[in-house]
Amino acid sequence: MDWKPDKSLQIPVYRQIADYFETRIGNGEYPSGSSLPSERGLAALLDVNRSTIVSAYEQLNALGLVKRIKGFGTVVTSSAPDGSEAKRIPNWEQYAKGGFLQLNDPITRRIHKIVGSDKPYINFALGELSADLFPTALMQEAHSRLELSQYLGYEHIQGNPILRESIANHLDTHRSISSSPSSILVTSGAQQAIHLIIQCLLKAGDGVAIEDPSYSYSLPIFHSAGLKTFLLPVENEGIDPEQIIPLYKKHRIKMVFVNPIFHNPTGTTLSYERRKRLLEISANYGIAIVEDDPYSLTSFDQQPVATLKSMDQNGSVLYLSSLSKIVSSGLRIGWIAGPQSVIQRLTDAKQQMDFGHSNIPQWIAARLLASPELDDHLMRLRVGLSHKLALTANALRSELGSEARFLTPQGGIHIWCELAGTFDEQRLFNAAIDNGVVFTPGSTLGTSKSHVRLTFSKVEDDLIAPGIRKFAEAYRMTCR
Amino acid sequence: MDWKPDKSLQIPVYRQIADYFETRIGNGEYPSGSSLPSERGLAALLDVNRSTIVSAYEQLNALGLVKRIKGFGTVVTSSAPDGSEAKRIPNWEQYAKGGFLQLNDPITRRIHKIVGSDKPYINFALGELSADLFPTALMQEAHSRLELSQYLGYEHIQGNPILRESIANHLDTHRSISSSPSSILVTSGAQQAIHLIIQCLLKAGDGVAIEDPSYSYSLPIFHSAGLKTFLLPVENEGIDPEQIIPLYKKHRIKMVFVNPIFHNPTGTTLSYERRKRLLEISANYGIAIVEDDPYSLTSFDQQPVATLKSMDQNGSVLYLSSLSKIVSSGLRIGWIAGPQSVIQRLTDAKQQMDFGHSNIPQWIAARLLASPELDDHLMRLRVGLSHKLALTANALRSELGSEARFLTPQGGIHIWCELAGTFDEQRLFNAAIDNGVVFTPGSTLGTSKSHVRLTFSKVEDDLIAPGIRKFAEAYRMTCR
Repeated sequence: MDWKPDKSLQIPVYRQIADYFETRIGNGEYPSGSSLPSERGLAALLDVNRSTIVSAYEQLNALGLVKRIKGFGTVVTSSAPDGSEAKRIPNWEQYAKGGFLQLNDPITRRIHKIVGSDKPYINFALGELSADLFPTALMQEAHSRLELSQYLGYEHIQGNPILRESIANHLDTHRSISSSPSSILVTSGAQQAIHLIIQCLLKAGDGVAIEDPSYSYSLPIFHSAGLKTFLLPVENEGIDPEQIIPLYKKHRIKMVFVNPIFHNPTGTTLSYERRKRLLEISANYGIAIVEDDPYSLTSFDQQPVATLKSMDQNGSVLYLSSLSKIVSSGLRIGWIAGPQSVIQRLTDAKQQMDFGHSNIPQWIAARLLASPELDDHLMRLRVGLSHKLALTANALRSELGSEARFLTPQGGIHIWCELAGTFDEQRLFNAAIDNGVVFTPGSTLGTSKSHVRLTFSKVEDDLIAPGIRKFAEAYRMTCR
Repeated sequence: MDWKPDKSLQIPVYRQIADYFETRIGNGEYPSGSSLPSERGLAALLDVNRSTIVSAYEQLNALGLVKRIKGFGTVVTSSAPDGSEAKRIPNWEQYAKGGFLQLNDPITRRIHKIVGSDKPYINFALGELSADLFPTALMQEAHSRLELSQYLGYEHIQGNPILRESIANHLDTHRSISSSPSSILVTSGAQQAIHLIIQCLLKAGDGVAIEDPSYSYSLPIFHSAGLKTFLLPVENEGIDPEQIIPLYKKHRIKMVFVNPIFHNPTGTTLSYERRKRLLEISANYGIAIVEDDPYSLTSFDQQPVATLKSMDQNGSVLYLSSLSKIVSSGLRIGWIAGPQSVIQRLTDAKQQMDFGHSNIPQWIAARLLASPELDDHLMRLRVGLSHKLALTANALRSELGSEARFLTPQGGIHIWCELAGTFDEQRLFNAAIDNGVVFTPGSTLGTSKSHVRLTFSKVEDDLIAPGIRKFAEAYRMTCR
C-alpha cells in the first residue's frame, strides 16, 4: 500500500481513507468477502490515530460496503458500485434514525400504536370525546347541506374566509375576544398552531417557559427546534407569574406557553389575579404569551371563565383553540388569533408545510360555529363530561381510596391523579396495557413520576368503572 | 459610573452592559427621554471595543427600551419594567422576522396574495384545475353517500385504513406499483410529504440533488433545514443520471428529488433509459430517490408512462403523489409509498405536526379512488387538459411567434416558455399583474431568467387567448 492520506487537504483524513477503500472495493481490489486491514495495523501504516481508522470503517459500514464483525475484523460485503455484485440499496433504517425532528418518546409512540390498533383497550390516554358526546346530528345536518358545486381548488391558505368570519364571531360571542378574519389562521388543531409558532417565531437557543406538568412538556418539537425550555410549576391556582421575571432576567426567555383554563393535565385554572399579573409581566418585559385554550367552554358549572386573550389590553397574547375537544377532533379544525404580522408569517409557513387546510371540513366547521344549535350541544357536552368525571372520580375513590389523590376539576377532560404508593411507572404502564386499559404516565407530561393522567372524555360511561378497576388492579400488582 | 463588566464571567460583555442599563432604566436612573452615554465615550470608560457598546445598545433597542437616533445618540423610550410608564408589549414584527423556517421568496408571496384576493386575475401561476375539470358530480355523489354516524374522533395518524387500502389498489391498477396499506402514509398533498421527508430523513449539512428548474427549487424548506442542494439540469430527456455519481463522490449526497414524468415546469419526461440508469445508480451508491409524481395519469395520448417506483426492484424510491392535479387540490389528499421504517418515522412526525389528516376528505377520497367512474373522469381530464394546452400553445404562437420558444408537453399542466428578447423578470411580472394576468417567473423555479412558466390547467378555456394576449402585451412593454 503506497497510498497515504494527504493531511494538507480540506477533506478530513478519515474520509480520505474511506474514499480510498470505497474505490478499491468498487474496482474489485477488495472483492466481496475479503477483509480490510486491521484497524491497529492500518493506523500504524498510515501514521494516524486508530480512532481515525474506526471512523473511516464506520463510514464504509454506513454505506453498506462492509460489515464489522466483532473479534474478526472488517469484511467487504459488496463490490458495488459497478453493479455486478450485491446492490447497496439505500439504508432506510439509517435514514429514519437521522433527521431534524426528534421522535416522540417511547411511551407516546406506544400509546399511538395502541390507539391505532383494533384491540378494544379502555382508553384513558387520548384527549378526545366519546362517540356519544359528538354533535353527530348537527354534523350530519351541516354535511348534508353542503353543495360541492362550489370551487374545489385550493382553499385560501390562511383558511376559508367564511370560516374565519365564523370563528371571529364565535370568539366574540362565546369567549369575549375581539378579533377579525384577517387576524385568524385556520390550523390543523392547536397541535399545528404550536408547531408553526415554534418554527416561525423562535430560533435555536431561544428560551421559553412552559408549565410543569403540561402538554407542551410532552412535545419533542420544542427540543427539535433547539429551544431551551424552562419549567413553571403548576400549583392549585396555576403557575406563579412572578417566576417569569427571573427567567427573563437570566435567560431572556422570549415566550411563555400556558393553558390557563382547566389545564391539561392538572385541571387547575389560573386564578384571576394571576392571569392579570401574567399579562402585566408580559407587557412590562415584552414577553409573548401563547395561550392554548381547548377547554374553556367545558365549564361544568356553565359559568364562563375569562381567557387571557379577552383580558389582554396590549396584544401580548397569541390565542390558540380548536373544535377538537368540543365538537370533533377528526375535523382537525383549530385556529390562532393574533397580530396580523404574526398571522401572515405563519400563513406563509403553512403554505410551505401543507398548502392549507382541506376545504370540506372548513365548510362544515363554518356552519357548525354559526349554528344556533351549537349552544345546546355545548350544554349537553358539559353535562356529559361532568357525568364522566363523576363516574371516574367515584371509581377511583372506591377502587383506590386514599391511595389516589386528586383535585376535582371544574372543566376539561383530565384527572391528574397522584398515587401514594411506590411504583415503577413503566411497569404500571405495561401492566395496565396487559390488563386492557391505557393511561398517560406522569413523566410524559412533567417531572412528577408519582402521577398519572386519566382522561375521562373518551371512555363510554359504562366502561369507566370497569376501566378504573383494571387500572387499580394493575397498580396493586406493580406497587411495592 | 463605577461599574465595569466582569470579563471573567461566562455572560458576554455586551450583554452585561445591556443588563446594567436595563436595570438602570428600569429603576428610573435613566428616565424616558434621557440619553445613554455616547458609544465612543462609554467604550473608553469601560475599556471595551466600541462594537461591544453597539451590540449592547442594539439589544436595548430590540427590547424596545431605547431608540437609536442617527447623529444624536441613544435615547431612552421607556422606563419599564416597573410598569409605570409606556408598556413594552411584545415586538411581534421582531418575532415574525426570526424563526427557523425561512419565508417564501417575494414573488411566491405576491402570487399567493393575488390568488387569495378577490380580484379576477387570469391565473397562469397556480398548479391546479379549473372548475370544469373537477369531477364535481362524482365528488358530490361520494359526499352525499357519507353517513357521519361513524366515529368522529381522530383518524389513524398514518391515514384512514380504508383510504390506504384504496390508494394501494389504485397504485396497483393505475400505476403498476405494488404497495400495501401499511407502507402508505396519507399526507396533506405532496407538499407535506416533501416537508416530512426533509424534516425526518435528512439533517443540516446533508447534500441532496434537485432538478434545475423544478418545484423543489422553489421551496425554502430545503434551505431552512440547512441542506445543501446541488442542481441537475433538466434536458429534453430529463436529468442526466451520470451527473449524480460525481455529486455523490464529492459531496456524499443522500437523496435525489425528481419529478420524472411530465416534469414541473419543463413538461419533459425522463427517458426510459435514463429512468433505468437512475435506479441503477441509486442502488449502486445507496442514494435514496424521492419520486414526485403528480402528473403521470394525465398523459395526453392516453398511454401510461412507467413511474420509477414501478421499475424499482430494490426499494430505492419513496413515491409521492396526490389527488391535487387529477381530482381536487382542495381535498389536500396526497400520499407517500415507501419502506415501513420510513413510513413509521414520518407518521410519528405527522402526529407532532398536525395530529393526522382530517377525516371527511379521507372518506371521500377513499370512495373516489374506488369508484368505477374514476377512469371516465381521467379520460375527460386528459382531453380537457390537452385542449387547454393547444389553446395556450396556439395563443403563444399567434401573439409572440418566434419570440416564444417551448416544447409541447405530452402531459401535465405547464408550458415552460423561453422568451427570446431581453427583459427584466421583475418588471415583466409586475407589468403582467397590472395587465390582469399572473404567471410564474423562471427564476422562482430555477437558474434561468429567460423562461416563464405558464400553467394552463386553471384558466377557463375562453380566457386562455385573452390571458396570453395580456401576457404578450406586458412582455412587449417591458422587453428591450
